[in-house]
Amino acid sequence: MITPGLIVAPLTPFTANLDVDERALRRQIDYVVKDCAATMVVAAGVETQEYTYLSLEQRKALIRATIELVDKRVAVMVGVTHPSFKTSVELANFAKTLGAEAVQLLAPLRPFAGPPTQADLIAYFEAVAGETDLPITLYLNPGPGADVSIPDTIALAKLPRVQLIKESSRDLARVSRLIVEIDRAGHARYFTTMQMLLASLQLGGSGATMPPPGSEIARHIIDAFVARDHERAAALQLQFALFPSKWMHRGLAPTMKAALNLIGVPVGDPYPPYAPLNRDETEALATVLRTTVLAHRFSATAAA
Amino acid sequence: MITPGLIVAPLTPFTANLDVDERALRRQIDYVVKDCAATMVVAAGVETQEYTYLSLEQRKALIRATIELVDKRVAVMVGVTHPSFKTSVELANFAKTLGAEAVQLLAPLRPFAGPPTQADLIAYFEAVAGETDLPITLYLNPGPGADVSIPDTIALAKLPRVQLIKESSRDLARVSRLIVEIDRAGHARYFTTMQMLLASLQLGGSGATMPPPGSEIARHIIDAFVARDHERAAALQLQFALFPSKWMHRGLAPTMKAALNLIGVPVGDPYPPYAPLNRDETEALATVLRTTVLAHRFSATAAA
Amino acid sequence: MITPGLIVAPLTPFTANLDVDERALRRQIDYVVKDCAATMVVAAGVETQEYTYLSLEQRKALIRATIELVDKRVAVMVGVTHPSFKTSVELANFAKTLGAEAVQLLAPLRPFAGPPTQADLIAYFEAVAGETDLPITLYLNPGPGADVSIPDTIALAKLPRVQLIKESSRDLARVSRLIVEIDRAGHARYFTTMQMLLASLQLGGSGATMPPPGSEIARHIIDAFVARDHERAAALQLQFALFPSKWMHRGLAPTMKAALNLIGVPVGDPYPPYAPLNRDETEALATVLRTTVLAHRFSATAAA
Amino acid sequence: MITPGLIVAPLTPFTANLDVDERALRRQIDYVVKDCAATMVVAAGVETQEYTYLSLEQRKALIRATIELVDKRVAVMVGVTHPSFKTSVELANFAKTLGAEAVQLLAPLRPFAGPPTQADLIAYFEAVAGETDLPITLYLNPGPGADVSIPDTIALAKLPRVQLIKESSRDLARVSRLIVEIDRAGHARYFTTMQMLLASLQLGGSGATMPPPGSEIARHIIDAFVARDHERAAALQLQFALFPSKWMHRGLAPTMKAALNLIGVPVGDPYPPYAPLNRDETEALATVLRTTVLAHRFSATAAA
Repeated sequence: MITPGLIVAPLTPFTANLDVDERALRRQIDYVVKDCAATMVVAAGVETQEYTYLSLEQRKALIRATIELVDKRVAVMVGVTHPSFKTSVELANFAKTLGAEAVQLLAPLRPFAGPPTQADLIAYFEAVAGETDLPITLYLNPGPGADVSIPDTIALAKLPRVQLIKESSRDLARVSRLIVEIDRAGHARYFTTMQMLLASLQLGGSGATMPPPGSEIARHIIDAFVARDHERAAALQLQFALFPSKWMHRGLAPTMKAALNLIGVPVGDPYPPYAPLNRDETEALATVLRTTVLAHRFSATAAA
Repeated sequence: MITPGLIVAPLTPFTANLDVDERALRRQIDYVVKDCAATMVVAAGVETQEYTYLSLEQRKALIRATIELVDKRVAVMVGVTHPSFKTSVELANFAKTLGAEAVQLLAPLRPFAGPPTQADLIAYFEAVAGETDLPITLYLNPGPGADVSIPDTIALAKLPRVQLIKESSRDLARVSRLIVEIDRAGHARYFTTMQMLLASLQLGGSGATMPPPGSEIARHIIDAFVARDHERAAALQLQFALFPSKWMHRGLAPTMKAALNLIGVPVGDPYPPYAPLNRDETEALATVLRTTVLAHRFSATAAA
Repeated sequence: MITPGLIVAPLTPFTANLDVDERALRRQIDYVVKDCAATMVVAAGVETQEYTYLSLEQRKALIRATIELVDKRVAVMVGVTHPSFKTSVELANFAKTLGAEAVQLLAPLRPFAGPPTQADLIAYFEAVAGETDLPITLYLNPGPGADVSIPDTIALAKLPRVQLIKESSRDLARVSRLIVEIDRAGHARYFTTMQMLLASLQLGGSGATMPPPGSEIARHIIDAFVARDHERAAALQLQFALFPSKWMHRGLAPTMKAALNLIGVPVGDPYPPYAPLNRDETEALATVLRTTVLAHRFSATAAA
Repeated sequence: MITPGLIVAPLTPFTANLDVDERALRRQIDYVVKDCAATMVVAAGVETQEYTYLSLEQRKALIRATIELVDKRVAVMVGVTHPSFKTSVELANFAKTLGAEAVQLLAPLRPFAGPPTQADLIAYFEAVAGETDLPITLYLNPGPGADVSIPDTIALAKLPRVQLIKESSRDLARVSRLIVEIDRAGHARYFTTMQMLLASLQLGGSGATMPPPGSEIARHIIDAFVARDHERAAALQLQFALFPSKWMHRGLAPTMKAALNLIGVPVGDPYPPYAPLNRDETEALATVLRTTVLAHRFSATAAA
């Protein structure tokens, strides 16, 4: 068995001026690398990282800071998603010079409406793949990105440069098929989400991508799975039944930021105008988190 | 641990005249009860059973035949779904007189368009619950039925008469939450689908409902899970990765009928004008089924 | 210019015992024929007519009663929608013996889930068309029926027996194309809805299908359009901007029944457990209806 | 009657190096201002303008070029859509210094998934409105932006700074209600699309926003409507039945660029990797356009 991957996407802390708060980022990345034992860190790759607010220069600065703060302890994958393939290529080259080991690229909405065809998707990924020698992660996230069908996902996974897939769907029928038709078939390694982690590992998937502090729970699940302590793995997976799903109407970024703030890894609030969890929501979240492996991080006085 | 439930919905074989073929039904029900060790059989409860084509009299005859053929070997649950609560009540009373142990009722589309409100759904279930003392299974299947939100599902699960839930979604985030908020909370027992079976059991769900011959694979999964042979359970669950998902564009009824025909439990074709799997589709299905626990049912000459 | 068609679908009044109230139906049909000058009446054809609650015998009785009450003053089209094509054929033959001039058939959901293919749809319509010589109306209503694509709609419209189309979509891009590619191309006559009436007529569509009392407003729109009083037609079309859309979350059947009750054509409440409009909703509806051509039907004391 | 507005969004021509081709832009803007008699021009406001590929500096250059090329002949509205309200404010201030008369802001997707709440939407628009004194156009375009409900649209329209609405839906039931509840109610002026133009004007809407050369057809529709030549208006509206809907699977930008190229206003191809219409598609488009008011722009040799 290949060791399952735990790819972690640090949240972006902002200062009062809405610049990236590198001091808070440092603390969080130490948590991600040391406490969660991430096998890879994603820089500015998923929307929950709130990178879309940033100018290209700010985004590059965030990528550079992430790579420097990880400091070669684990591999870094850099998000290069942009409507223009030229900017994606620019970001991929930038990532390469900084020592990144992979890039992540969202399967895009067609900018001018209508779902992209398979030819559109292939052309877009080839336009980027032709200009970088880094492995590419195909990132699937309907909404900000396209809703890619099963056949189109398989076609993209067969591109030689596409070596990982980050799947956001929680549809286990879809994911079961794609793990078999992509990961077990040898086309690319398949990564899913918090709620799908144990089911994915059992089917032969390669791991999951997620923000902290879900990653600390995931570390325990993966360790139990590798140790073949399947009952403990199942009990741990249950810790993702309510968290974060029960707060998703508030959004993943506000929920995960609230969770990190609760466990003593402060990352501040979401970028305005989106609101942080309010007092009642935060208390309810704390109550649930205290039933998980994160409980030990709550001091007697840490409740919201 | 309560023994997980395996609720099986026999397919409906039709004669050339499009009447129910009781002889073929008998053979199939023996397979379901003996070979799959179903813990409960559903009579005319899910769409894959193709009961919607039947007149009310034919439907009652199918219910009666199913109960007689099961012959008290296991419990029978009777589908009572109908746009009119009065007909549902009539069917529930009929089921009671025949010795059924439960009824199953689809959360309905509002007949005159627009999603039903929580009040609509509660009123409909209460209208039936008030006229029967049998336990009711809340059947969730968006498309033929309503797409019921998480809060509305919980509200329905809290009705005293609603004691089981049949969930058709393969959204593991939804199902994880509902297993915790409904099944583990004691409101009702939560049953899912083929693709969700092992994940559901591990989270504390009560089992799954499905047609044969998926039920034979499911029996092996449940037995391995109960025996705490978790690696075998996971390997068996993988047998649901391609089957039946890869043929779902053809529909579940044609696919499962083709599978039963292949393993020597003949049930004929789908009700016209829907087409059976063609030769190539059937051969591809046989190839996949030969990699499952169903392989032993193929004789040397049985391929399509 | 062919005279635009106004196809009206009377609502089904129920007695306290939930039988069809023929006395109330008689009064309503007189209103539809005389006051709305319907060019055709639909018997048990659309979901708003609440026919899905009825047994097949009750449904036939409603069809017979409708035809008798119309009494040859205008043509009657009979709804023959059923999951089984055999029952649809039976209803079509029944309609023929009673003197109906057409039948209406919903493009069906596939009973066992998944969208029907074009081949499925063609096979279903041909199965019915082969057994009747009455013209068939293709009825499109996603939800209770399938969401039929533009190419599939055109393919169905080209079937010789399909001579009318009842389109429920309010997507003017779709409807504009289909009026040109179906109605103006000579394949079938294209009928739309209340909100689409004037736009449809201007593009060359054939009219609309709707329940009363929308049909009285529609009569005025059609008359103004035929008289080339385009500004009056536009002013009248505006009467469909709020009515019934603003009450659609309550459902079309409750809203239209409330409207009929308000204007002195009593039809009672929706079939239980669905609720009638409450007092506040009814008053708000009355206020809007008093701004329409229906105002003259309110007596000084008639407000809800 | 207020004169209906025709807001035109020029397409963005690119050079071989994928820079903005100002020479081609100049020719197109002259066409838009002189031949289409646009009442307002949008700079970098809608996705069909392919502005999302551009860096912020390129986007500002495009805005500046558009304003300079319009040269005060008509008002210019500047698109300021960006995930960060700070960048939107920066663009609004930039637009103000250049003499723009309004800004256009897309109702955004929540960057971290899940539909935005009404509070999210209000907060976002207020964050921008508080920093500019230019009127704001609320731009509704589900997909790139949020799918805003009718109540949320009305709430946004009541913000004092929101003075126009650009509606992308072709749902005439929605649009009819919102024209009454927003435009006729005095909250904001309501603009729709090509396919909805005449229906919108008849209901009291304020006009439409679109790219060229649809705008030349629209100019004729508006002129006929203002002249009360309603039959000519309806005949002209029919020219939008097939164009551009029949090519929308290829995307609006490729279709409209192909149309402009055909009528002698060359704008090149879509930004890669999206493909231009192929030869057959272009010929079919030419055949349809020759049946419209654009026919006079085809020379004997101009066919694709």
